[in-house]
Amino acid sequence: MNDMTNKWIGQRTIRPDGADKVTGRAQYSADFAMPGMIHAKMLRSPHAHARIRGIDTSKAEALPGVKAVVTAKDVVDFPLDKSVMLGIQDMRWMCRNVMAREKALFHGHPVAAVAAINEEVAAAACALIEVDYEVLPHVIEIEDAIKPDAPILHEWNKFEGKPSNIAGTMVLKTGDVEKGFAEADVVIERTFTSRPVHQGYIEPHACTVSYAADGRVTIWSSSQGQFMVRAMTSLLTGVPQSNIRAIPAEIGGGFGAKTIVYLEPIAVLLSKKSGRPVKMVMTRDEVQRATGPAPGSLSTVKIGARKDGTIVAAQGTFYLQAGALPGSPLRGPVGCSFAAYAIPNVLSVGYDVVSNRSKVAAYRAPGAPLGAFATECVLDEIAEKLGLDPLEMRLKNSAKAGDKAIYGPVFGEVTFKETVESILHHPHYKAPLDKNPSPGVKRGRGVASGFWYNAGGESSVQVNITEDGNVVVTTGHPDVGGSRASIANVVAELLGIDHSRVSVLIGDTMTIGFSNLTGGSRVTFASAMVATASTEKVIGQLKERAGKIWGIDAEAIKWEDGMALPAGDNAGKFPPLSLKELAAKANEMGGPIGTQVQLNTTGADPGFATHCVDVEVDVDLGIVRVLRYTAAQDVGRALHPGYVEGQIQGGVVQGIGWALSEEYLYDKNGRVDNASFLDYRMPVCSDVPMIDPVVIEIPNPKHPQGVRGVGEAPIVPPLAAIANAVHDALGKRFYALPMSPPRVSERLEQP
Amino acid sequence: MNDMTNKWIGQRTIRPDGADKVTGRAQYSADFAMPGMIHAKMLRSPHAHARIRGIDTSKAEALPGVKAVVTAKDVVDFPLDKSVMLGIQDMRWMCRNVMAREKALFHGHPVAAVAAINEEVAAAACALIEVDYEVLPHVIEIEDAIKPDAPILHEWNKFEGKPSNIAGTMVLKTGDVEKGFAEADVVIERTFTSRPVHQGYIEPHACTVSYAADGRVTIWSSSQGQFMVRAMTSLLTGVPQSNIRAIPAEIGGGFGAKTIVYLEPIAVLLSKKSGRPVKMVMTRDEVQRATGPAPGSLSTVKIGARKDGTIVAAQGTFYLQAGALPGSPLRGPVGCSFAAYAIPNVLSVGYDVVSNRSKVAAYRAPGAPLGAFATECVLDEIAEKLGLDPLEMRLKNSAKAGDKAIYGPVFGEVTFKETVESILHHPHYKAPLDKNPSPGVKRGRGVASGFWYNAGGESSVQVNITEDGNVVVTTGHPDVGGSRASIANVVAELLGIDHSRVSVLIGDTMTIGFSNLTGGSRVTFASAMVATASTEKVIGQLKERAGKIWGIDAEAIKWEDGMALPAGDNAGKFPPLSLKELAAKANEMGGPIGTQVQLNTTGADPGFATHCVDVEVDVDLGIVRVLRYTAAQDVGRALHPGYVEGQIQGGVVQGIGWALSEEYLYDKNGRVDNASFLDYRMPVCSDVPMIDPVVIEIPNPKHPQGVRGVGEAPIVPPLAAIANAVHDALGKRFYALPMSPPRVSERLEQP
Repeated sequence: MNDMTNKWIGQRTIRPDGADKVTGRAQYSADFAMPGMIHAKMLRSPHAHARIRGIDTSKAEALPGVKAVVTAKDVVDFPLDKSVMLGIQDMRWMCRNVMAREKALFHGHPVAAVAAINEEVAAAACALIEVDYEVLPHVIEIEDAIKPDAPILHEWNKFEGKPSNIAGTMVLKTGDVEKGFAEADVVIERTFTSRPVHQGYIEPHACTVSYAADGRVTIWSSSQGQFMVRAMTSLLTGVPQSNIRAIPAEIGGGFGAKTIVYLEPIAVLLSKKSGRPVKMVMTRDEVQRATGPAPGSLSTVKIGARKDGTIVAAQGTFYLQAGALPGSPLRGPVGCSFAAYAIPNVLSVGYDVVSNRSKVAAYRAPGAPLGAFATECVLDEIAEKLGLDPLEMRLKNSAKAGDKAIYGPVFGEVTFKETVESILHHPHYKAPLDKNPSPGVKRGRGVASGFWYNAGGESSVQVNITEDGNVVVTTGHPDVGGSRASIANVVAELLGIDHSRVSVLIGDTMTIGFSNLTGGSRVTFASAMVATASTEKVIGQLKERAGKIWGIDAEAIKWEDGMALPAGDNAGKFPPLSLKELAAKANEMGGPIGTQVQLNTTGADPGFATHCVDVEVDVDLGIVRVLRYTAAQDVGRALHPGYVEGQIQGGVVQGIGWALSEEYLYDKNGRVDNASFLDYRMPVCSDVPMIDPVVIEIPNPKHPQGVRGVGEAPIVPPLAAIANAVHDALGKRFYALPMSPPRVSERLEQP
Repeated sequence: MNDMTNKWIGQRTIRPDGADKVTGRAQYSADFAMPGMIHAKMLRSPHAHARIRGIDTSKAEALPGVKAVVTAKDVVDFPLDKSVMLGIQDMRWMCRNVMAREKALFHGHPVAAVAAINEEVAAAACALIEVDYEVLPHVIEIEDAIKPDAPILHEWNKFEGKPSNIAGTMVLKTGDVEKGFAEADVVIERTFTSRPVHQGYIEPHACTVSYAADGRVTIWSSSQGQFMVRAMTSLLTGVPQSNIRAIPAEIGGGFGAKTIVYLEPIAVLLSKKSGRPVKMVMTRDEVQRATGPAPGSLSTVKIGARKDGTIVAAQGTFYLQAGALPGSPLRGPVGCSFAAYAIPNVLSVGYDVVSNRSKVAAYRAPGAPLGAFATECVLDEIAEKLGLDPLEMRLKNSAKAGDKAIYGPVFGEVTFKETVESILHHPHYKAPLDKNPSPGVKRGRGVASGFWYNAGGESSVQVNITEDGNVVVTTGHPDVGGSRASIANVVAELLGIDHSRVSVLIGDTMTIGFSNLTGGSRVTFASAMVATASTEKVIGQLKERAGKIWGIDAEAIKWEDGMALPAGDNAGKFPPLSLKELAAKANEMGGPIGTQVQLNTTGADPGFATHCVDVEVDVDLGIVRVLRYTAAQDVGRALHPGYVEGQIQGGVVQGIGWALSEEYLYDKNGRVDNASFLDYRMPVCSDVPMIDPVVIEIPNPKHPQGVRGVGEAPIVPPLAAIANAVHDALGKRFYALPMSPPRVSERLEQP
């Protein structure tokens, strides 16, 4: 499949979800309704940190129109002394995240939920719930949370024997960093900070659920995994998975944050109590205040190199903001920061720090951009100091096949160099840049690279042939980045038929086998692999049928251009049998043609990206504008290039927001002060140039189509690339994000 | 599986659809809605027979609120000279049934359809459509339609070289009937008539469809087969099957008549034209007037027997009313009437007769009750004449294993005798009956038997194991008679787990492989067989996983009580691994556990039924009341006895309506005069006693659980059984149905 003669793989075929989305027909999670449905609202904590001494819901329950009230006592409790993992999520924290139990841990933390005849009555009832809070001192920032006298969020959590806000650590080590630094000609150590940023999906969390009289539950919601919705809801409500049908709605963005649930279990409990279907829709304010941003970070990176640019040692210390409950993505900075480089001595340490903010959730290459921000800026500084081209220095130090990755495995192919070379030889990198185009305006260029693991994992795919000889494919993953279009290309290619004859659908938890989350840049890799296995099985069935008709062995038949053809000695002996002809005969020849294949896929080699950016700084206003952006990435194989480019562009734009403008503002009471799209400054179209994606395709030999994964790597380099470009423009390094106008102005005042 | 140690097979487990249905949550076809949805109505012919010279829809289209108008020119045409079959349906007739083309062929025949902002506007627009009709003479009854000078419905249809209303024939023959009758001691020949009766499902036909901007179609409707809906809609609209998602709603009765479509293709065409989702719901009047009843019949049966009761020859001539387009179920009376008996000389001939009535649709054991009415009444008369017990006479003549059935195959097991003996020895048959309990009241007892083919065919079943070790099963057939409950019993039994851990769902056409219609008493037979294959494959996967864990061969493992156990030499060496344990390890051991199996099943041996009924006749009023009814049937195996009994009871009640009260009344213009449940007299609860089902279970050796099929056979005997009972009461034989008060009174006046 990896030659260039493909007919559909690599084509920009029409999006299966396109028409529905542009005409408004696509059904998102808030678009479902049921007869008799009622509406639910959360009562949320007005305090950043408070012990809950008691909750009196009696007045709320007495309000006419109120049908059910739920508090933590209705949610399945997972005792603190025992971890119960669902994937990477610990249910001890999830059960406390969906509903505050002993304490309210952040402003906006759900404390109770009410279902009533409409949202207004539900909100009025929330206001009638009396919560007896003991307000506690709160802590927001990492620097404060790790101080010895900081208010402690979780008394049971010990670090080095004492109650602490450090809830976990991760250490990766290779060689001996002390020895390494001793061998270096130049050693640079810098400390960086970055702020939590929200995933900023357009679609707020929402669900409609129905708990029927016999205990069977239907959930309509958008998520990055209907099977995750089923599993978490099951764990938090006690309803067995086989009684839950989780139906995936179209998803208006997730970017990692819809890999956990906020509403579904609570809505199920309200539906169970009320006997009515329940709809629950967050406002934007609730999304911003109480759903997972990516963590903020406090990172120190120290790198030592020889004069020729060879890196001999690297050390990283990454404090990540977990939010109110443990679980920040340490694996991102600790594992990814140095992974692209062959460094003999590395010590990479991460700390998971809780504070009174909403619990973080995964965000595109979780944690990796924070590590790359620190590492790639220090590298830039070393290259500058040594008078080396920063890309050449990266080339010199690139990891290669056979190297042991710091996070464990031995690398197979390493295609990092190709991404660096692609930028090195790109017209953008060679283009002259007028660094002072006008008074008060300075321009600069920066580069940075990024690494992401990519992932395989569990997918299930059904392929069924219709009686009229077309194809219906069902997969089990929400389509967040074009997986339907990619799978249609793959199946059409394998079957050798026109793309329009293949329909791809996302099944719900009762109509397709288990399929893991859409995330980790895994879905196109895994589902294309399983779709291939499934389609090949179907081609096997088709050949078998043709063999029966011709009276020859199925082995002696080849499948080409949508037809079975006798091959070898029998070549030309029988006229070909098309898919349509075989489909028409299916039922008389043993039955329908189709299959479901489910696999835990492996072989998703890592993704590498190298970016180049030109910025312009308005020195008077402190505004940084991105002028030109080129992003090179090895994707293995672009099954649908339009989507691949879109993923790269989207990742970069999100990185631009992280670098330049996005942050939460807290008031002195620990309350988010800018919980709206107006005040929380995400990049909009006018903030970004056309991002130029350079799609490198070095096929992954472990994948039938050569896919590696796309979506995460492009968000890793932008933070550092932009910081390096701003330095190039101003001659000053920035160690704190975002490089927003106030911070840029402030930095310009400093030496 | 056929021993009596089963834990779940044979249990009256809780209905999976029960809670939703009794609480009103179940979604029937009219319960779906979509944003922007508009509503459609049919314009129907006011004439029983008229040529359509032209249709002017301009005024309707100009009416504000009207979004689309469809006529026959929008429907895919299937030219008259070439048959295009979908199962047993000829698309030439289907395309003309959903929308009149050259002619309006019955009163109520759709002529155009309008979609508008609401039903009222759509109806007003229908009234503005100008149809230029040339009214033609019409014909309603078989007797009139086969007269040489009858108005001819289809000029292209020739019989014996001349235009005719006889549109088809079917002949089955064994031996030489002339020779046979010559050997008989007694020969009786009688002519019988019966009236078309409606299937009388509670839920009218309805659908909501969406034709999206990219040509993808979603259909919500109830039917006896979502794949039939997909296929017929595809054929009649030209949309490829892979672009149609037909989602099965719960079904409020079908009884055969929902094996074809009336609305879906028209709604799709309206949706395509308007760009809006379209909802279409029939009124009861439309259902009665324009959807398929079962055919009326004109049958002559002649049977010759020796003095000892041995039947030596039988001849049947069955004219069936097709309605306006060909396709009455000749296979019913022609093939079934004599099939239960070993008769050396048989000639069975059927004629398909068109007339200006709505086209017939399948109705429970299609056509078979009509044949049995004639045959079983003549047998009763012969037994009477020979002084034999009618049941003993049936026993004497029962077909046996190895006999060649008149319809082709050689019988395997024949369990007819067991049904006859069951009634013969039943307390009901032995109970004394006071034939004149009071003045003007006469009582009588009658018996009759029935035969139905049963059927296998295509089914697909997915079995997927949830991560928490429970089971989700998807099948592809609408559940009209308890298939979900039966499949849950089978899967729980095979897996050896609690029934509550299995959920069974009906998939739509995009989430399950092709599955043929729910009909022919095939679904439980076929889907239990395929569910067994699918579950066994899953058990194989589970054993393989256990084998990997234990390091032994999967062959050396047995599955018992929901656990893998080492067997043979390894017995006891390892602690058992439960389904829950294996499910928890699934993903680390190769991936999710599950499969889809699809098969064209065979081996559905025929069903036999013998019934006994006591009736009471009010001689003054002509009212026949059913006092006691016992229905014995060999079902092979009752997977869920409650549903099996319900099927038998339901079949009998529908037979009672056919025998005693149901008929269409036509006015002189060929218009149905009683198109409502008020005037069309179906039996209600107070009309029937508790029907006593005698469920005989002689397992079918060709089926893993022993299933034969249930739903159709019980409607075959009642017409004759009741007629024989009325004769026993009054001493007069009835040759015409229904035996309604006016007819009974009339007959009582005759000699």
